[in-house]
Amino acid sequence: MNCIIASTSTVHGSDYLAYLKEPLLELFKNVNEILFIPFARPGGISHEKYTEKAKKGLAFLNKEVVGLHEKENFKKAIEEAEAIFTGGGNTFVLVSQLYTHDLIKPLQNVISNGIPYLGTSAGSNICGKNMRTTNDMPIVYPPNFNTLEILPFNINAHYLDPDPTSTHKGETRETRIKEFHSYNAIPVVGLREGSWLKVTDDDIILKGELKARIFECEESPYEIAPETSLKDLH
Amino acid sequence: MNCIIASTSTVHGSDYLAYLKEPLLELFKNVNEILFIPFARPGGISHEKYTEKAKKGLAFLNKEVVGLHEKENFKKAIEEAEAIFTGGGNTFVLVSQLYTHDLIKPLQNVISNGIPYLGTSAGSNICGKNMRTTNDMPIVYPPNFNTLEILPFNINAHYLDPDPTSTHKGETRETRIKEFHSYNAIPVVGLREGSWLKVTDDDIILKGELKARIFECEESPYEIAPETSLKDLH
Repeated sequence: MNCIIASTSTVHGSDYLAYLKEPLLELFKNVNEILFIPFARPGGISHEKYTEKAKKGLAFLNKEVVGLHEKENFKKAIEEAEAIFTGGGNTFVLVSQLYTHDLIKPLQNVISNGIPYLGTSAGSNICGKNMRTTNDMPIVYPPNFNTLEILPFNINAHYLDPDPTSTHKGETRETRIKEFHSYNAIPVVGLREGSWLKVTDDDIILKGELKARIFECEESPYEIAPETSLKDLH
Repeated sequence: MNCIIASTSTVHGSDYLAYLKEPLLELFKNVNEILFIPFARPGGISHEKYTEKAKKGLAFLNKEVVGLHEKENFKKAIEEAEAIFTGGGNTFVLVSQLYTHDLIKPLQNVISNGIPYLGTSAGSNICGKNMRTTNDMPIVYPPNFNTLEILPFNINAHYLDPDPTSTHKGETRETRIKEFHSYNAIPVVGLREGSWLKVTDDDIILKGELKARIFECEESPYEIAPETSLKDLH
């Protein structure tokens, strides 16, 4: 496997994908074309517009970037892809589309076989065991919450620490993940914006400058530093 | 119908349900017993503990408060209830339980027949046409996202305005609701904490001191003042 699984596409004060420039040059160094999966449609934008955005964001690579929606046969396009980037947006929409077009198994196969994969936000959520720790609104009803299981745990993208000055009574992210653990034993990695996981066959390493917060069922959450391995978290 | 559909059980700096004291004295004035539905389990707490909390919060009413989980036959308990309070927590868990125990129709019937109903947060979300505008994490997979349709629109509980100083790249509430409208034509009422809807057979009125934000498909969002009728929003 050869994946970058990132909390967000964009960090504050920086352009789309700009903070990932160096690791993406490395990830995609041997490919000519990157297949972009635009299904998560952030803000409801079209597949065409989203693919344009991805092309601009990846222009520094000097590679072809092609939207999956442009392909005649989606399954075949995945199976033959040299590299894949799944962009963020709404995880419910993304997962629904993957099931509708029967793309879960093909994606699992090609990623397991080692083609370079980049996921950001919703495109990272789907790499976990299921999508039950997404922050997204359930605007469509997917046939299933199970996802690619590239990771032996779930991630929570855009992980946000509780704001001690907040007067808002909605649940904090930590409370939500605690509720998740009332019904699921799967560990959750709270990935802050600017963090990503580098996944290879041998290891899963936390990258970026920030710590990540780990939630295990029936244990107190704890922090891990960059360069920590997560391969034994399951 | 005779319902209070509240954004939250608790406002900042105040005790559980305290801000609703006057309207609840009125809502429940003619009943002896209130059936509490504890299924949403906020923070994963047990049905027993949650019912204790509801009992304490409603103690000022001097009524019996009984948890639905204590009843032998849930369906019969709903059908024979004098009044119902569904507490907040996780909407996915709540809706799953309502389907598991086949309680959607019985609840629709008794609420339509005019028994007093109080919903807070998740207990309010279920009064909309579907649960697709909940903020909750999808920690369990319900058989369906459709809900009670007491209201001709959806609500977004704990509605939160975008924070102009935020550096966070997760979607704002407004962006999420815009995404909802890419797939659903149902209007959404963003109910801020401290607001509630008073629902009768003839009208739906915004109550509390705050404005609410209305999102209609393909229109710009707009604000409505307290005491505005929402009966024509559908």
